[in-house]
Amino acid sequence: MNQHWWLNACQATDQAVHEQALERQRQLTKPAGSLGQLEQAAVQLAGLQGRLKPSVDEVWISIFAGDHGIVAEGVSPYPQEVTAQMLLNFVSGGAAISVLARQLQAQLEVVDLGTATLKEPLPGVRHLHIGAGTRNFAVEPAMTVAQGLLALQAGRDSVERALAAGAQLFIGGEMGIGNTTSASALGSALLGCPASELTGPGTGLDAQGVSHKAQVIERALALHQAKGQAPLELLLCFGGFEVAALTGAYLAAAQQGLPVLVDGFICTVAALVAVRLNPGCRPWLLFGHRGAEPGHRHALAALDAQPLLELGLRLGEGSGAALAVPLLRLACAVHGQMATFAEAAVADRPA
Amino acid sequence: MNQHWWLNACQATDQAVHEQALERQRQLTKPAGSLGQLEQAAVQLAGLQGRLKPSVDEVWISIFAGDHGIVAEGVSPYPQEVTAQMLLNFVSGGAAISVLARQLQAQLEVVDLGTATLKEPLPGVRHLHIGAGTRNFAVEPAMTVAQGLLALQAGRDSVERALAAGAQLFIGGEMGIGNTTSASALGSALLGCPASELTGPGTGLDAQGVSHKAQVIERALALHQAKGQAPLELLLCFGGFEVAALTGAYLAAAQQGLPVLVDGFICTVAALVAVRLNPGCRPWLLFGHRGAEPGHRHALAALDAQPLLELGLRLGEGSGAALAVPLLRLACAVHGQMATFAEAAVADRPA
Repeated sequence: MNQHWWLNACQATDQAVHEQALERQRQLTKPAGSLGQLEQAAVQLAGLQGRLKPSVDEVWISIFAGDHGIVAEGVSPYPQEVTAQMLLNFVSGGAAISVLARQLQAQLEVVDLGTATLKEPLPGVRHLHIGAGTRNFAVEPAMTVAQGLLALQAGRDSVERALAAGAQLFIGGEMGIGNTTSASALGSALLGCPASELTGPGTGLDAQGVSHKAQVIERALALHQAKGQAPLELLLCFGGFEVAALTGAYLAAAQQGLPVLVDGFICTVAALVAVRLNPGCRPWLLFGHRGAEPGHRHALAALDAQPLLELGLRLGEGSGAALAVPLLRLACAVHGQMATFAEAAVADRPA
Repeated sequence: MNQHWWLNACQATDQAVHEQALERQRQLTKPAGSLGQLEQAAVQLAGLQGRLKPSVDEVWISIFAGDHGIVAEGVSPYPQEVTAQMLLNFVSGGAAISVLARQLQAQLEVVDLGTATLKEPLPGVRHLHIGAGTRNFAVEPAMTVAQGLLALQAGRDSVERALAAGAQLFIGGEMGIGNTTSASALGSALLGCPASELTGPGTGLDAQGVSHKAQVIERALALHQAKGQAPLELLLCFGGFEVAALTGAYLAAAQQGLPVLVDGFICTVAALVAVRLNPGCRPWLLFGHRGAEPGHRHALAALDAQPLLELGLRLGEGSGAALAVPLLRLACAVHGQMATFAEAAVADRPA
């Protein structure tokens, strides 16, 4: 195995098709630019897919789950058992992302990278057993190099399955009690800003809980001398298994030429790691929404990302990206099916 | 005909169902509030439809078109012929709203209230011949009382057809070269703010064009001594036929108990007229998006409206509301189909 596969070149955008799609947008029977971000999304997808009329009918959603040793520091209001309980809920069809995937006719796979409390395998879940959750990064690095490589590869493997199933768009979701703490630590280290700026209530901490969480992260950043370290080292030190899997998936998707729709805060931090590791992946990343967790805004700004939605979401699971799928589908439909001024015999404005 | 039908009482929200829907949201397997505005939308629709599990599968879209005498003042970069040409494009399936309606499996009707350039009727368009466009409100009131009543009634008639077809959600769209000028004048008069604050590029004026447009409106506001006049007088003075039809439709929908999804700037000004005429209609109005036209922000704020999308749209036709329909549908699906903590045996956070 090439241990540095993530540094391999990403696919290039088809510039000729991108230009043709831009020109088509100018000819459609509407004032130029009047469909705003939807025009940009359709043109971007055209360039990525190399098709004048792109399509995202076939959507693949991989949920990556993992537990976090950092919960020993009291950073979440929910018990750790919830990670495993939600795995069952995902495959039973009762979770938000299960409902959304069904409505969107998207393929949903559930990957358990390593949970702490699950006693027996769950039918329909892909269990990878990388560890019984990560270690407590307030004390020691969250994962070993070997675990990190397995998690990155797990994301890459999901992309391979997505491609084999004919996916035109990849969505990664995540589940893991404690993972906003992991993402906030990783984001703070990557962006070089105080933990307090990137730390929020997660699933629902009160102000005192948020303050404690930020202090835990700040101490861990100092312990590991995070400042100036390489992104891969930071990922191993603070990342959850699911964050590493998302990073691996985004990089593999860009290398294989599969557009990605990034979900919320945790996914956006994983995207930030991916872009720092291999900047060529950036054009392949579209962003579903700007969520309620305060760190999300910072991470999106660092990526110069313009998400489609802003609905005050803070659920994770890939739900915010899933909610943005109809907008991309409608953007493609309008781009592909509207009449041009010439076809409809409508007067354009004077040039 | 009761000439004041629009003052009749609007339906009340079902408070008991509203409370039950709120309680159901608290029991679903996700952190409380983590689906943000989508939770609020589902709960609001439950109360409006009087069903614990609401649905907006059946969507009706009425596009109201009309011409505007104010175009004589040079306020639009497009020729007036475009209004009638777009009517043909709507029914031929080539316009943005035609594509969106098809994708959403929504019923689309096209109502021509009064255009200036159309020589012959178009198959599939409902022609009402209220006038050959409105008069130039820079010189005289845009419409007579009789014309205003016909336009209000036209909107009400569309709602009756929507209900007869089984609609669960009503969307009004508009088309009319010059109608951002009409809406800006009406909005300025209703909100008592300078025309410059509510005047924007519309379909694409440059800065000089916007300045001229604001001056035209400011002079007209002075000519008609708009300040302090009643909303109905202002509607007759500045409104387009399509704006009056939208107002009538929103009021009739609220009276008949049909939820409305309001589109962009012009529709929001029509909603503002409706709410000023009969405040009981407000709970029935949901808002699809915040558009690029600067006046839209003011009109939404005056209605204390929280739209679902903000994508830089400035097309009209009902397109922004149509784009928000999948979000409402997914909000209903998640609300209706997710498992509760008890059903899924997932641990809730300690109370």
